[in-house]
Amino acid sequence: MATVEELKLRVRELENELIKCKQKQCAMEEAHSQAANRPRIDKMSAEVVDSNPYSRLMALKRMGIVDDYEKIRTFTVAVVGVGGVGSVTAEMLTRCGIGKLLLFDYDKVELANMNRLFFQPHQAGLSKVEAAEHTLRNINPDVSFETHNYNITTMENFTHFMDRISQGGLEEGKPVDLVLSCVDNFEARMAINTACNELGQIWMESGVSENAVSGHIQLIIPGETACFACAPPLVVAANIDEKTLKREGVCAASLPTTMGVVAGLLVQNVLKYLLKFGTVSYYLGYNAMQDFFPSMAMKANPQCNDRHCRRQQEEYKKKEVEQPKVEVVEEEEEVVHEDNEWGIELVSEVTDAELQAASGTVPDLPEGITVAYTIPAEEPASGDTVEETEQSLEDLMAQMRKL
Amino acid sequence: MATVEELKLRVRELENELIKCKQKQCAMEEAHSQAANRPRIDKMSAEVVDSNPYSRLMALKRMGIVDDYEKIRTFTVAVVGVGGVGSVTAEMLTRCGIGKLLLFDYDKVELANMNRLFFQPHQAGLSKVEAAEHTLRNINPDVSFETHNYNITTMENFTHFMDRISQGGLEEGKPVDLVLSCVDNFEARMAINTACNELGQIWMESGVSENAVSGHIQLIIPGETACFACAPPLVVAANIDEKTLKREGVCAASLPTTMGVVAGLLVQNVLKYLLKFGTVSYYLGYNAMQDFFPSMAMKANPQCNDRHCRRQQEEYKKKEVEQPKVEVVEEEEEVVHEDNEWGIELVSEVTDAELQAASGTVPDLPEGITVAYTIPAEEPASGDTVEETEQSLEDLMAQMRKL
Repeated sequence: MATVEELKLRVRELENELIKCKQKQCAMEEAHSQAANRPRIDKMSAEVVDSNPYSRLMALKRMGIVDDYEKIRTFTVAVVGVGGVGSVTAEMLTRCGIGKLLLFDYDKVELANMNRLFFQPHQAGLSKVEAAEHTLRNINPDVSFETHNYNITTMENFTHFMDRISQGGLEEGKPVDLVLSCVDNFEARMAINTACNELGQIWMESGVSENAVSGHIQLIIPGETACFACAPPLVVAANIDEKTLKREGVCAASLPTTMGVVAGLLVQNVLKYLLKFGTVSYYLGYNAMQDFFPSMAMKANPQCNDRHCRRQQEEYKKKEVEQPKVEVVEEEEEVVHEDNEWGIELVSEVTDAELQAASGTVPDLPEGITVAYTIPAEEPASGDTVEETEQSLEDLMAQMRKL
Repeated sequence: MATVEELKLRVRELENELIKCKQKQCAMEEAHSQAANRPRIDKMSAEVVDSNPYSRLMALKRMGIVDDYEKIRTFTVAVVGVGGVGSVTAEMLTRCGIGKLLLFDYDKVELANMNRLFFQPHQAGLSKVEAAEHTLRNINPDVSFETHNYNITTMENFTHFMDRISQGGLEEGKPVDLVLSCVDNFEARMAINTACNELGQIWMESGVSENAVSGHIQLIIPGETACFACAPPLVVAANIDEKTLKREGVCAASLPTTMGVVAGLLVQNVLKYLLKFGTVSYYLGYNAMQDFFPSMAMKANPQCNDRHCRRQQEEYKKKEVEQPKVEVVEEEEEVVHEDNEWGIELVSEVTDAELQAASGTVPDLPEGITVAYTIPAEEPASGDTVEETEQSLEDLMAQMRKL
């Protein structure tokens, strides 16, 4: 039977052990919360000290590259698709100190994603937007985040998506400055295209081929450049038999290199566009097999199936007439690739009959770029559509050339 | 005064609280160690399941891009410099499942590095190699790591560096398969050049300009292509007044985009070289202002200052005579950039007198590429050196053209 003295001793021992345990717990929590945070920074500084996360970016001003780097904090960018390209895109923008990011994805992180940058094995099972927001907030707490864990192509989500890109700017109620498409399928690209045409929202598209060795980025200005319904999406030919690519039930290959390069070229184009330096590319391809980078520009198609695209074209024409071009000319000159043999190349599966039935025009393309697929003719639901699809391929191409 | 019963109650309370505290601590530790690990994988599988981190890489075989992807596990790569380019390079190789990585750096992580990919704020203060190894091991525990937290340019460390790249392969005693230079200064590049010339070690160099808007990668095969002592290092001109770049005491600008693109192009070239697919680039530049990507190839200079380079050239010539070329020809054809106006461009600070005194040859360069600096003539310590530096620029260039 324990004496009072023995019990008192035991109480003291337990109290000490408990204090130690709680102290260790505190230390672990603190380490965790330290890991999670650096203090927010109110004003970007150019001071050259090790503790300033913006010193190397602000140096772009001193170097004469960017006039007003701080302006980056006033911009909002929506990233649709937070996979191999989208996650790295979001990370680059976060590290550059963008004002606000909207992230859209409905996928979960899997170990099968570990061959690309950004996500880590311990995040497997989390939603991509949730995992990404956590990592990005740690990296730069100065950025505002808004995440949406849904598929933008369903009717209800699409309406919400439209609402957020038109209202979800840094100042609620204002539109975002740019939408970036980092999705991996046709439906999602078309949904973004439809939304941006309706809203007159400038956006950039990106893509990586299923064989992992080519990719591209593209700037789309509704009414001015070709939209996704104007012409089939372009891809960089990777000099590989297309038949190998399209086998049923085969999982797509991917590489952290190709996706990192495409994300880098995309965000570089975003920075040049937002901060007004260098030449913004309309289309830039990357063929990893030959280290070949074709570039081009493509104008909107007056016969586009998307009525909002046609409306934007009308509005653009009116604006052009009202205020003559001042500085756009210079950019266009730089972008169009010289010395290329222009010719039409199509993926091998497309027959002439399918081509004739295609409602989108087939553009003249520089060497190394092909169309991914043609847009099938829609059911003749309205007289409008019939009229357009009745045109022969030759007519469409002749019109395209005239543009 | 407490009774025995009261004390017993207190002991029970404390014991329960202690158990709870220890349980929570365990849970925190487990969460931490789970975060730190996925199980090791003995054999790369092509199975298409969410839990297979290699499925998208093994798909490169099915797509006809790579014949034997598993071979990646047999290679060792040394990455010298774990900064903006080196850290992303190491991460890409880790995610691709490289056999072994050797990391060399002597810097610490700072918040000022947060404008580039890879490191996170909670790692500030850690050595770069230590922080990198921790992150990379979590991402892929199948990779072997060896880290060296030192400056390779000091005499003693240089000897150790030579030893490790000649002995530190996956099988101890065998050399590494490739050395990647991701350093940010001339001395470190020259140290790598000296070591690789002496050992006949193939390496790749990378660099990003101080204004953050251009970069390059370069493959160097001792005895075959120009080494760093053969000709001044090449850089991509960024169409910016060079005087802005060289102001004293100004910190260099950097961007996650440019560094991500350069790391992506570098590791893509590494994969193409190691796994034998596509065309390996000898020199590939990236000019972000115009999205311009010049490429070229440059042969070794028989008057190179580095005696080991000259020895490697002799050995290469002997080999060439003994076994005529079989497949190298094809690659060379692809790499040399066509349709370029070849001309010499030099940074504005270099005077003609300095040029004449330069011991390295000044190569013919394609548009958009310039030499970073010329190599100053050494003190005439040996007759050998005098003989070489006495040649006029014209002589050297004439020789260069004959190559």
